[in-house]
Amino acid sequence: MEPRDIFSMKWRVWWSETDAAGIMHFSKYFAICERLEEEFYFHIGIGEEARMAGRKIWFPRVHADCDYKKPLLPRTMYEVALTKIELGESSIKYSYEFRDDNGETVATCSIVTVTVTGFPPKKISIPKELRDILKSHGAIDRFSS
Amino acid sequence: MEPRDIFSMKWRVWWSETDAAGIMHFSKYFAICERLEEEFYFHIGIGEEARMAGRKIWFPRVHADCDYKKPLLPRTMYEVALTKIELGESSIKYSYEFRDDNGETVATCSIVTVTVTGFPPKKISIPKELRDILKSHGAIDRFSS
Amino acid sequence: MEPRDIFSMKWRVWWSETDAAGIMHFSKYFAICERLEEEFYFHIGIGEEARMAGRKIWFPRVHADCDYKKPLLPRTMYEVALTKIELGESSIKYSYEFRDDNGETVATCSIVTVTVTGFPPKKISIPKELRDILKSHGAIDRFSS
Amino acid sequence: MEPRDIFSMKWRVWWSETDAAGIMHFSKYFAICERLEEEFYFHIGIGEEARMAGRKIWFPRVHADCDYKKPLLPRTMYEVALTKIELGESSIKYSYEFRDDNGETVATCSIVTVTVTGFPPKKISIPKELRDILKSHGAIDRFSS
Repeated sequence: MEPRDIFSMKWRVWWSETDAAGIMHFSKYFAICERLEEEFYFHIGIGEEARMAGRKIWFPRVHADCDYKKPLLPRTMYEVALTKIELGESSIKYSYEFRDDNGETVATCSIVTVTVTGFPPKKISIPKELRDILKSHGAIDRFSS
Repeated sequence: MEPRDIFSMKWRVWWSETDAAGIMHFSKYFAICERLEEEFYFHIGIGEEARMAGRKIWFPRVHADCDYKKPLLPRTMYEVALTKIELGESSIKYSYEFRDDNGETVATCSIVTVTVTGFPPKKISIPKELRDILKSHGAIDRFSS
Repeated sequence: MEPRDIFSMKWRVWWSETDAAGIMHFSKYFAICERLEEEFYFHIGIGEEARMAGRKIWFPRVHADCDYKKPLLPRTMYEVALTKIELGESSIKYSYEFRDDNGETVATCSIVTVTVTGFPPKKISIPKELRDILKSHGAIDRFSS
Repeated sequence: MEPRDIFSMKWRVWWSETDAAGIMHFSKYFAICERLEEEFYFHIGIGEEARMAGRKIWFPRVHADCDYKKPLLPRTMYEVALTKIELGESSIKYSYEFRDDNGETVATCSIVTVTVTGFPPKKISIPKELRDILKSHGAIDRFSS
């Protein structure tokens, strides 16, 4: 974990995450970022119910991207860090960094969610309580929503 | 498709289904059997709503198994066939066969579902309409449920 | 398939591709784009061996992104189209569009590969034969590599 | 961890492992058993190279099965335990148990590997060193191979 990291975890590259090139499959990085987001919310103590305001709001993903610098090999350990959280009016952008055993960056990713309620979903502002908690963990405001 | 097959499809071994041994990952066979089951029900014209009696019943999996004889290589075509459907009072057992490009059997699998309603789920009999349709496509009765 | 599409296929949203929100999981779109790329190369008749020059070259992914506009529901059919191929000196950028049953765009994605040889991988130019074939199927040159 | 367990770990049901029924997808249990096997070998200190005798031997899966008793819900913690290892002449059978937060068994699975060398693979005996180490961790002999 580096000083600027908001949260990080270490996992092994499991066999089921590799492909026939002998490396972590590029699509798995996205599931791993989401996995870290889930662990982050448990870590800071926001239960599912609280975060979703009793299931009245949810957070569909509207964007995801990754840039891959080096491959991750089967059964090696890696760290994935949540390095930045940017808050729009409705959107939350999470930035991630994957590091190999030597601490070298192997990939950087970002995922953007919007805050919605109802079905069909209607875009709403991030609830104030959630915004405050995220800011107390290093999240920053940005202009665009 | 062999004479005794109830239904079959051909797909390619996609890259995302392989692992670092350079073969189809063993866990993917289960998802593919389920995929064939889905296509089978559309093929015989039982819509989702009809099969689930307007979402009042559903079919959790209680058992799954596969025996692997030979590997499937990336980007080769294979056939997966639904070879048998056995009907209990509440359970449905689907048997599957995977064949490579030469028609050789590479794996055999089976999946068992039970018919339930409500939550927590309560076991019920397979609806008569569904049983009749399945039997018209070759399903057979068996004693155990 | 729309006039400007280079290639497209239709698949069903299979159960194993959905998540507990009752929609296609956002990470699956990436595997599906790759799946279409694989089918595209078979479709235009470039065998694995030819494309990889007898396994001497390969195409690691260096970037992937998706923008999600609407969810895809379980068991619905969707179309995924390869809408653009842009060729750099070494890189190939594939652009994709997902459309639901009504032809509405539900997601757009892009994936960038680089052409490398050896291990550790060394960046090389796209082989002329591959470049020519891709251009004959609508690929265009771009400046950056 | 129960007294008879050979090894166990706790993980959360991550979103990417769920399906539209709002539960862990049945195919994921197999990947998780394999994941535990990987962690077990690291835990007992058998490096990849040693176990595979410098990549000369490997362990294809020839059988896998699961029985599902109760669903696992998104974001809940569960324990998966390696409860038994049975050694044939060439085969290794691993038995697994999944337990929910209350310690109740939700699924039991088993996976069988064979020991092979070369390509095409030729079945060989489990190396004596590996057999001895596994027995020192509770593995037992069985008659069939």
